[in-house]
Amino acid sequence: MLHLSKMLFNSFTIMRGLSEFSATALFMVISCMGCSVRDQGASGNLISSLNYGLATVVVMHIFGFISGAHANPCVSIACCLLGYIGSNMMFVYIACQLAGAAFGYFMLLQMLSQGLLDACKQGVCMVEPMNSLSSIQILSIEGFLTSVLILAWSALWDVRSGRFLDSVTLRMGCLVTVCNLAGGHLTGASMNPAKILIPTLFKGNPETVLLQLGGQMLASIIIPQLWIFAYTPNYRPLQIETPERHASELYLSP
Amino acid sequence: MLHLSKMLFNSFTIMRGLSEFSATALFMVISCMGCSVRDQGASGNLISSLNYGLATVVVMHIFGFISGAHANPCVSIACCLLGYIGSNMMFVYIACQLAGAAFGYFMLLQMLSQGLLDACKQGVCMVEPMNSLSSIQILSIEGFLTSVLILAWSALWDVRSGRFLDSVTLRMGCLVTVCNLAGGHLTGASMNPAKILIPTLFKGNPETVLLQLGGQMLASIIIPQLWIFAYTPNYRPLQIETPERHASELYLSP
Amino acid sequence: MLHLSKMLFNSFTIMRGLSEFSATALFMVISCMGCSVRDQGASGNLISSLNYGLATVVVMHIFGFISGAHANPCVSIACCLLGYIGSNMMFVYIACQLAGAAFGYFMLLQMLSQGLLDACKQGVCMVEPMNSLSSIQILSIEGFLTSVLILAWSALWDVRSGRFLDSVTLRMGCLVTVCNLAGGHLTGASMNPAKILIPTLFKGNPETVLLQLGGQMLASIIIPQLWIFAYTPNYRPLQIETPERHASELYLSP
Amino acid sequence: MLHLSKMLFNSFTIMRGLSEFSATALFMVISCMGCSVRDQGASGNLISSLNYGLATVVVMHIFGFISGAHANPCVSIACCLLGYIGSNMMFVYIACQLAGAAFGYFMLLQMLSQGLLDACKQGVCMVEPMNSLSSIQILSIEGFLTSVLILAWSALWDVRSGRFLDSVTLRMGCLVTVCNLAGGHLTGASMNPAKILIPTLFKGNPETVLLQLGGQMLASIIIPQLWIFAYTPNYRPLQIETPERHASELYLSP
Repeated sequence: MLHLSKMLFNSFTIMRGLSEFSATALFMVISCMGCSVRDQGASGNLISSLNYGLATVVVMHIFGFISGAHANPCVSIACCLLGYIGSNMMFVYIACQLAGAAFGYFMLLQMLSQGLLDACKQGVCMVEPMNSLSSIQILSIEGFLTSVLILAWSALWDVRSGRFLDSVTLRMGCLVTVCNLAGGHLTGASMNPAKILIPTLFKGNPETVLLQLGGQMLASIIIPQLWIFAYTPNYRPLQIETPERHASELYLSP
Repeated sequence: MLHLSKMLFNSFTIMRGLSEFSATALFMVISCMGCSVRDQGASGNLISSLNYGLATVVVMHIFGFISGAHANPCVSIACCLLGYIGSNMMFVYIACQLAGAAFGYFMLLQMLSQGLLDACKQGVCMVEPMNSLSSIQILSIEGFLTSVLILAWSALWDVRSGRFLDSVTLRMGCLVTVCNLAGGHLTGASMNPAKILIPTLFKGNPETVLLQLGGQMLASIIIPQLWIFAYTPNYRPLQIETPERHASELYLSP
Repeated sequence: MLHLSKMLFNSFTIMRGLSEFSATALFMVISCMGCSVRDQGASGNLISSLNYGLATVVVMHIFGFISGAHANPCVSIACCLLGYIGSNMMFVYIACQLAGAAFGYFMLLQMLSQGLLDACKQGVCMVEPMNSLSSIQILSIEGFLTSVLILAWSALWDVRSGRFLDSVTLRMGCLVTVCNLAGGHLTGASMNPAKILIPTLFKGNPETVLLQLGGQMLASIIIPQLWIFAYTPNYRPLQIETPERHASELYLSP
Repeated sequence: MLHLSKMLFNSFTIMRGLSEFSATALFMVISCMGCSVRDQGASGNLISSLNYGLATVVVMHIFGFISGAHANPCVSIACCLLGYIGSNMMFVYIACQLAGAAFGYFMLLQMLSQGLLDACKQGVCMVEPMNSLSSIQILSIEGFLTSVLILAWSALWDVRSGRFLDSVTLRMGCLVTVCNLAGGHLTGASMNPAKILIPTLFKGNPETVLLQLGGQMLASIIIPQLWIFAYTPNYRPLQIETPERHASELYLSP
């Protein structure tokens, strides 16, 4: 408890929490601002996928070396399970991400006129799974897509890819784009609990949200174990209990 | 005064000013040349966003290591406020950028036939904010998008991202593309006073231009302070009063 | 025989085989999941090409430093002919790739509802050559496109490009995208025997599949010889008989 | 004369010439194969621009470290004028490029069925300038776009960008894409004499071809002088008279 309170007032923790807050807020605004002008069909699907992927690039470029630019509670959970951040830090990250997503969503609603907000198909930033999918299919598709995301973060954090971090931001953008191209019309492919939860507080279908959320959570808990078991050779990641490392040592790998 | 005149005739200053002039001219021509063949709607929006983003990549690739390839007065202002260039140099940059934009715009008008010029929706290179947006919304959207751009430049210049500059050109291209995808249909998302001002001298709505310009200026003044306050750890950037550094030391970070 | 069985139980061999299995399965699911919502024509062609190319980026990013992320029997054959992996390892790779493709295809069928599966033009993940092409044209187009892929892998593995591996994942994604843009409507441009064979086991035209497969196989056998003969200067690649190298030495070049 | 004949039989010269031959042939086939399925208008313009840009990435990835992957006589002329290759080598390059383009074009015609060839708007790989443009406008647009390309190659070869070559292939792809997006509907934006000349030998309008060619040639001769005069600080590029450097020293900069 003392340790937690001490950590909370540490200047690097504040900087990293603030960075996660800003990253998630910025991500919400950029990825949802354009929803009102997209037509349905293949072309609209392509544009919203590109928008979502490129927003990831922007967020990782700006905040990557400050806090790792997770901007996604699933990523922070996986990061903790792989031992790169402590569990206290994980809770700080998740709290900042949820607060940032709410702040960003609120700002977005102020920035758009009422006509634009009404033009969004299912509400601003809302994604509805396709009707013809069963519950287990929604859960498994969302879980699969989030698994791909978590696998990519695990690979990014892995010591073996340490020399190849320059273009990793672009690769993650490609990943988010392709996961949206593949599954965007099926379950929305948000792969991000913060992006699912906040708009739902305003208006949403609690049942399908729980399925999407369940798939995302399952992926963020199972994949790190699998990564350690299957793809980590002899060594194990260091259990870093002190997340007060100097920020300049970090690049996308807090 | 003596210092200014001395600097103006320094060969590196001339080379860098000329580079900003060429960069902005080239940027104006490439990003506006294709306006006449685009249809409205989602597909046209995607193409003009890609065009704008990729033009940024081109300009940063060619002129990045000569002058930093700002090609945007907002970026030069932020660069000065963060202490990477002196204020004299900033004024040289901005003057060269405005002159370059005017030259590029003039060249473009010569290169296109009258029929093509007439086919451009709102005049060549002109962007009009959406009617349904209030003044404060135009100001805040343009300000938000320019803030994202200035944050990205701040991150690029930051000493902590010094090892990850290879693909930074592409990342900035992604950023400009996604900001245009998100806000292009709302306020035009030019994020560049030079690109807003020059076509307006020919034909334009002075009121909305002032709002766009105001948002851009606010972002370029506020964001650097915020970056220094929130995301710069212990050290402060060096106050470089002598911008005559050897150009080979610079890469995208004059 | 003893050597083979010994190798099979080596932990690095298992890790690499598992990685190829996962890579191919993941590749099958991501690249085929979206088939049901694409309309025909230019826009659908662009989206499916981007999907295929970006899926390559994802797979190479995640599994690149574990097993090289071939996910393609042709690539493994070329890798063996160029002497980078032994022939035993090649058979392990190919077996894992085919099993992974089958597993991925099976998972995909479970994840999609019947309506979505029926909406796919020619069956999920199936590609049919254009009717107006002769047999020799199908063989040569598929062979040409696979040759480009094998040439690119040969260049990637070449010692001379060893310093330029950071963005190679993105470049391979560009390559797969452009080969699909160019030839996707002609022969399907799968360039991957695993992706051709598995869906054919369910439903397919054996004759055209043989032509596609023939072109791919020819390319994967001829191009490595050509690369060694024409573009390898004085040295020859080392004949690595012991594929038990420490995995951390590998990056996309097993 | 003796020197030339000696050089011609040097194994590295042969390898580099062969590489230019293959690069140009491959470039012709990939960039022209898809012409038959594209509809006109914005979407078709986007796809053909992407196709052209990504084909550049492929060619530079495969042949970049062997011969520099010019695949374009204009680039070889500029390379010679900047002093990176000797004039003998330049003629070898240009001869190989023209032969490669002819070979690639011939192969392409064999690979496509008659119906596909007839479906191409203006003939396979042919580009016609827009009717409403005057001669001087065609010359200046083609000259401007080729200037951008030559400027980008000059920047690539410059010693100051030597540390940032990893993603340069992708940046050149972006450049070719955006130049096509901007000017593809105006003059065709081929920026490549080999790609203009070869299809014209079969069927073409000699007059407009000369204008395009003139613009390209002017750019490739003027821009290198301008680069040396304006953007090269104290040093001058070494006059390399002996192009027999070991190929492993080269990466995209012969």
